[in-house]
Amino acid sequence: MTIVYFAIVCGLIAVAYGFITSQQVLRAPAGNAKMQDIAAAIQEGAKAYLTRQYTAIAVVGAVVGVVLFLTLGIIPTIGFLIGAVLSGVAGFVGMNISVRANVRTAEAARGSLQGGLTLAFRSGAITGMLVAGLGLLSIAVLFWYLVEVAQHAPNDRLVVLTLSTLAFGASLISIFARLGGGIFTKAADVGADLVGKVEAGIPEDDPRNPAVIADNVGDNVGDCAGMAADLFETYVVTLGLTMVTIALLMRGIDAALLTKLMALPLLVGGVCIITSIIGTYMVRLGANQSIMGALYKGFWTTVILAVPAIYGVTHYTLGGRMQDSIASLGEPSALLDGSTLSADALAAAAAMPTVTGMGLFWCMMIGLVVTGLLVWITEYYTGTNFRPVKSIAKASVTGHGTNVIQGLAISLESTALPTLVIVVAVIATYQIAGILGVAFAATSLLALAGMVVALDAYGPVTDNAGGIAEMAGLEDEVRHKTDALDAVGNTTKAVTKGYAIGSAALAALVLFGAYTTDLDHYHDALGLTGPVNFSLSNPYIIVGLLLGALLPYLFGAFGMTAVGRAAGSVVEDVRAQFRDNPGIMAGTSRPNYARTVDIVTKAAIREMIIPSLLPVLSPILVYFLIAAVADKEQGFATVGAMLLGVIVSGLFVAISMTSGGGAWDNAKKYIEDGNYGGKGSDAHKAAVTGDTVGDPYKDTAGPAVNPMIKITNIVALLLLAALAAGGTH
Amino acid sequence: MTIVYFAIVCGLIAVAYGFITSQQVLRAPAGNAKMQDIAAAIQEGAKAYLTRQYTAIAVVGAVVGVVLFLTLGIIPTIGFLIGAVLSGVAGFVGMNISVRANVRTAEAARGSLQGGLTLAFRSGAITGMLVAGLGLLSIAVLFWYLVEVAQHAPNDRLVVLTLSTLAFGASLISIFARLGGGIFTKAADVGADLVGKVEAGIPEDDPRNPAVIADNVGDNVGDCAGMAADLFETYVVTLGLTMVTIALLMRGIDAALLTKLMALPLLVGGVCIITSIIGTYMVRLGANQSIMGALYKGFWTTVILAVPAIYGVTHYTLGGRMQDSIASLGEPSALLDGSTLSADALAAAAAMPTVTGMGLFWCMMIGLVVTGLLVWITEYYTGTNFRPVKSIAKASVTGHGTNVIQGLAISLESTALPTLVIVVAVIATYQIAGILGVAFAATSLLALAGMVVALDAYGPVTDNAGGIAEMAGLEDEVRHKTDALDAVGNTTKAVTKGYAIGSAALAALVLFGAYTTDLDHYHDALGLTGPVNFSLSNPYIIVGLLLGALLPYLFGAFGMTAVGRAAGSVVEDVRAQFRDNPGIMAGTSRPNYARTVDIVTKAAIREMIIPSLLPVLSPILVYFLIAAVADKEQGFATVGAMLLGVIVSGLFVAISMTSGGGAWDNAKKYIEDGNYGGKGSDAHKAAVTGDTVGDPYKDTAGPAVNPMIKITNIVALLLLAALAAGGTH
Repeated sequence: MTIVYFAIVCGLIAVAYGFITSQQVLRAPAGNAKMQDIAAAIQEGAKAYLTRQYTAIAVVGAVVGVVLFLTLGIIPTIGFLIGAVLSGVAGFVGMNISVRANVRTAEAARGSLQGGLTLAFRSGAITGMLVAGLGLLSIAVLFWYLVEVAQHAPNDRLVVLTLSTLAFGASLISIFARLGGGIFTKAADVGADLVGKVEAGIPEDDPRNPAVIADNVGDNVGDCAGMAADLFETYVVTLGLTMVTIALLMRGIDAALLTKLMALPLLVGGVCIITSIIGTYMVRLGANQSIMGALYKGFWTTVILAVPAIYGVTHYTLGGRMQDSIASLGEPSALLDGSTLSADALAAAAAMPTVTGMGLFWCMMIGLVVTGLLVWITEYYTGTNFRPVKSIAKASVTGHGTNVIQGLAISLESTALPTLVIVVAVIATYQIAGILGVAFAATSLLALAGMVVALDAYGPVTDNAGGIAEMAGLEDEVRHKTDALDAVGNTTKAVTKGYAIGSAALAALVLFGAYTTDLDHYHDALGLTGPVNFSLSNPYIIVGLLLGALLPYLFGAFGMTAVGRAAGSVVEDVRAQFRDNPGIMAGTSRPNYARTVDIVTKAAIREMIIPSLLPVLSPILVYFLIAAVADKEQGFATVGAMLLGVIVSGLFVAISMTSGGGAWDNAKKYIEDGNYGGKGSDAHKAAVTGDTVGDPYKDTAGPAVNPMIKITNIVALLLLAALAAGGTH
Repeated sequence: MTIVYFAIVCGLIAVAYGFITSQQVLRAPAGNAKMQDIAAAIQEGAKAYLTRQYTAIAVVGAVVGVVLFLTLGIIPTIGFLIGAVLSGVAGFVGMNISVRANVRTAEAARGSLQGGLTLAFRSGAITGMLVAGLGLLSIAVLFWYLVEVAQHAPNDRLVVLTLSTLAFGASLISIFARLGGGIFTKAADVGADLVGKVEAGIPEDDPRNPAVIADNVGDNVGDCAGMAADLFETYVVTLGLTMVTIALLMRGIDAALLTKLMALPLLVGGVCIITSIIGTYMVRLGANQSIMGALYKGFWTTVILAVPAIYGVTHYTLGGRMQDSIASLGEPSALLDGSTLSADALAAAAAMPTVTGMGLFWCMMIGLVVTGLLVWITEYYTGTNFRPVKSIAKASVTGHGTNVIQGLAISLESTALPTLVIVVAVIATYQIAGILGVAFAATSLLALAGMVVALDAYGPVTDNAGGIAEMAGLEDEVRHKTDALDAVGNTTKAVTKGYAIGSAALAALVLFGAYTTDLDHYHDALGLTGPVNFSLSNPYIIVGLLLGALLPYLFGAFGMTAVGRAAGSVVEDVRAQFRDNPGIMAGTSRPNYARTVDIVTKAAIREMIIPSLLPVLSPILVYFLIAAVADKEQGFATVGAMLLGVIVSGLFVAISMTSGGGAWDNAKKYIEDGNYGGKGSDAHKAAVTGDTVGDPYKDTAGPAVNPMIKITNIVALLLLAALAAGGTH
């Protein structure tokens, strides 16, 4: 178990990094009294929202926990609770740093661009390392406890099940956090713009706007806390799932080797945390003052160092025999479970290619390449230097309609390259090492999460810093610097979303593999009499694909409508405040910021419940309906197809929404930089419309698709376990 | 073959109806000189465009024809040419009536609303009956020739192949017509609005706008000719495919019964033409003056009469033995092909439920119910009386951005009910009669095409009539009447699109069945060594699903961008005309309408080529790439999955675009009716933006998805035949 200890140490280093760096960030000067005053209001609002949100989620979580306890027992329930709590902690802590770093970034930007960049990025890095570190710790400690302390076999059902419930806990929290935070941030943003900019004619972030604090709170609870919970979930699901896949597929090797192999993803996660930490110190402006360039330095350092690091840990895990078939490395006399293999499982094992250490290494390299390509493609589609954003800016000249048409065209188009990259990666890794290869590619992709989240969490800090600079009436040049930092933030925010959904596409294959293997395992306990027919010729497969494909659409519709409704209540509140207290517009009295925050909070929490339950309940409902109409076998076939339908459709919905939204936002920024007439021109007005449309696309509906896909999949896995447990009682 | 003769007679009746009714329409008064002058300009432009479009398509068609001739021989090539030519003829003749009925409708509306309605609807009915009649004739005559004259067995490969190439010819023309027409109509519409309404501040359809004739031409070439070609294609593919499915699946019965059974879809198509013709005479305004109500009378008459008619022909075909298994009705001694059945085929036949005449009848009733539900759902999402349109209108009050957000939310949401209807229909029909049941449901759905197309083709006539009334300066009350007719037209236009894509979803299952059966048939000729693995566990299936799902997105992006670019050239031309000839705005000189029409024509034809080739080339490219990387079996598996991926994603893209676009359009109309401030209010401006966004959604990208899906599928089928022919040479 030395390997697991090493992973645990890396996880602890990440947490320590977070602790030390947060001390550094907090020691930075927090600006003048006015700035601190504003920052305090944002902190208070954010804390109030998150507390209320987590209370609401806790109720749902408790109900689910009781159901899990009754069907699956105590250990899986503890796994669920750990996943849920840590997902929440990652979001909560990240947000607490973010709401303190914002004002310090504004203050630092009064000094130099580098100062602002360093502070904002360091604060993002804290969130990043916490996400990766807590994720790694949760899986590693759980695995260590079950295998080393409780002495279960590494591929014991309890281990597999507990890793699944851990992932489920993380996913369940993250869908609520993503959606609730997303509704909050965009309702406040859209609402503030509608009354402020459009009706009252006051600029963005004007302190006279009662919704302005809610808007800044939203950046933190949506883009920071929600995002962190989401990426924590993605990290845990991907690494945990790779371990589960090893446990399920590698049945022909002995326990000692299996334990080592299952720990390899943890080790890869561990060393990449170290390379990510080194990377964070490389974020420095060069002579050309390019902010994106500075961030890229950190990112590429992490990626390049990851290459020898991953090779090293793979080499170490396999005792240096990188070229030999892994199956030949252990003790064949100590076969696990060999006697209980079904004919299907034997056939599957025989169909697997010969997996070597080098093969796994190459698959992980493909994972790194995919990460790089996804980052580059996202930058192309959302950066201000490239055709897509420029084409939207140009289309704004002819009006609101053409801006939106071009934005939609770009959002549709932006799905093509990521899809091709993922398709090529699937084919290549599968040719090298079968499903295991795909799983390891997903692992190395996610191993970079610390750095990728750092890039993302930097965004809301700079966004807030700009808001504070505006509200506190700081010099124009400060606002210029924070705007420059923020424009890059729009791209990095889009990057994480594309990255998360891309990993979901890779993971989909692996999740489906786990589903079929589980079906096989539970075959008798589920009372199945025949094989489950997953062939595309089975009409229930089409039914499942269609129902799965519907989920992201319905979910997107719910999310968009929720933002509209919640923004409507913001509009009414702001109008009422202006009406009842004329001193606000005159600048003589302070608006009631807290009241608006409170209204958005209630609306967001009310609106997040139903859509979040959609992916939890759908697989269960579909199974029972189809099992009633046809039979159990077709029920499981339909649910299986649904799992692929949701990713096949969700990938496109999510990428088109997040890239399209980012492109609209930066098209507005591109015009504000003085192109096509600049601020206040008709083109700018059209671009503001596009930005408003893109807001719920990129920050509410789009990013929540990723946890939605995961939940649907994990619920299906747990449904099997629960039905099997029920069947054998 | 009596049955086929009956079908041919019904087809001839439809053509005769078209001929007689067009004489009636042309005898109606054509209005004053000014109106005739405008109508002549529209006619001229439409004819010029279609001539140029069909010339361009003919080049592509000739190339494809040569390829087909070289790979598949003469008879299938003739089938292809018949499909291509008749698809073009349906569009061409329909449009020629439409451009003559428009001015007569405007003139009739000077008299009474009923007069305008009757004329517009009769003209639509001509197109409808031509589509159904020519479609039925082409299949019936081809089938009659091959089986009766050339004495091929009804399930001979040549018969199957020629029905496929007939469908391919129709599809190939229809994707060009849909896309080219769609780009034309929306480029002209958006371009005219941008310079006219926005820059010059003149109303819609103002004769001073040089793009106004192009806009009216667009209604005809896009909504009429393109739609007719599309529905002709859908009709031929669906009926032809049902016949092919019978030929492929019903291997245990004798030739005489098989011929009868294969002719049953033709007979159903035939009797439904008769009920549709009766239905057209029931379109009458009631006491409440509801236009939608009047159209519904015609529609429901058709549907209700279809019930006994379909029962009758099924009863007749099966010699009255409705309750017996069909397999037991023939002469078992004369089994066709029984000796050559592969193990797979035998297993498939054994797995089929016992099919009875009553079973097929019930499946066809389900097809009718699906049609009714799709019509009702579309009306709900696009009609001005219901929540969705009203919610968009309400959201317009708070600005452009919220209008678009709500419109997008509705467009996402509108996919849910149609998907559920289709899913339930698939399950029910499959439980009753297997894949054959699904095919017969699709057949009865499409048998109503004559009536459904009539409802749709009525739209562009009233749209044009309104334009002519405006340009000719007719009384306001005429414009009021044409506007009322046109608002309903927006809904009926959306209906056809939802109906076409819904039938595509049902047909997808059947097409996939044909693909797998063909793979089985050509197994040796293709040089396959193992089975093709269509299980979802095969990663190449995920690859295929993802690549298929990408096609509608990429296609949509191309379509939207094309409209943007083409509209840009319209804007430049109109600006140049205003600049060079100040007399135009003063009203003293006539703009050069023909020049604008010519510019849009060139742009539309240029822009339609690449996207239309996407579905033709993709399956071929994917097959060869995957076969090179992996093996032939995986190549065919990937292409098979791609066929389902394209429908799983295309269904949602198409429905969301067409319903969303219709809803945006009618939200604008709802505000123009005096709600939320009426014409000229800020809400109206926001609604105009939504309408502009919805235009390319509903009239360019969305509707072209249906032929795109069909082409991908048929190309895959033909690829198999071509490769097999190459393999055996």
